[in-house]
Amino acid sequence: MLNRTYDGQRCSIARALEVVGERWSLLIIRDVFLGVRRFDDLQQSLGITRSVLSTRLGCLTEAGVLERKLYQTKPDRYEYVPTRQGLDLWPVLMQLLKWGDRYYADADGPPRIVEHTGCGGRMDADLCCDKCGVRLHGRMTTTYLNKPKPAVAES
Amino acid sequence: MLNRTYDGQRCSIARALEVVGERWSLLIIRDVFLGVRRFDDLQQSLGITRSVLSTRLGCLTEAGVLERKLYQTKPDRYEYVPTRQGLDLWPVLMQLLKWGDRYYADADGPPRIVEHTGCGGRMDADLCCDKCGVRLHGRMTTTYLNKPKPAVAES
Repeated sequence: MLNRTYDGQRCSIARALEVVGERWSLLIIRDVFLGVRRFDDLQQSLGITRSVLSTRLGCLTEAGVLERKLYQTKPDRYEYVPTRQGLDLWPVLMQLLKWGDRYYADADGPPRIVEHTGCGGRMDADLCCDKCGVRLHGRMTTTYLNKPKPAVAES
Repeated sequence: MLNRTYDGQRCSIARALEVVGERWSLLIIRDVFLGVRRFDDLQQSLGITRSVLSTRLGCLTEAGVLERKLYQTKPDRYEYVPTRQGLDLWPVLMQLLKWGDRYYADADGPPRIVEHTGCGGRMDADLCCDKCGVRLHGRMTTTYLNKPKPAVAES
């Protein structure tokens, strides 16, 4: 996918980065996890060119991270869903999110809350539920935007 | 660091990727974790141009992920050490390593073994020690190359 100038390196991090080692790939996977799965929706969400998106989706599909699924015929339309290999990137993205939360959050707190569905606890730094302690995985969680508190209206 | 076309996105993953969202940055941080901290050593290990390495090191230092430390005078020579913010990327890299191990390892197994120093257990998929169960962090571990078994010599 990326040019493999470090082919000689025997390292799983290097090999993983050949597939997901540029920001658009990881942001596409983030969106797919959040349920944004159609080409036009991804393009709008990411604000990238159709050409870049098309290339990245092709690479991620070829690498076995995403899978194209028909959701409409006449004309045929596809959406991109994560494979098992794609779902296994969830802890990578969540650790990146936690790091971003720690160092780049606004005064309003983290932009997105990851909640243990049905329990109401939140994901802690070790990707466990801070209420019941269970190890979280993607399908056990609900993610929503942390809305900044509205300014108090003048009366 | 990267151009910020998604500045409008309120998302910790997007913000984190502005700092570490390209493969060289993460591979530099990997090497620094492994103890490769001097410019010439990093260049040799990564096989990239001095110019790209210099730019990336500058960005990572400016972002507060790495810190330049004088290790020799006449002439002055610096090495790059991780800050607290840099050390906090350890779980991101380890989850990426685990994903790479799962999907891109050779028949010989994972290229690198991450061991709980003093205990001898290995890091599991949840970044815990598979022997004593403790949650692992960078400084508690020793990493070494998993040497492929030599072919049996003909007698």
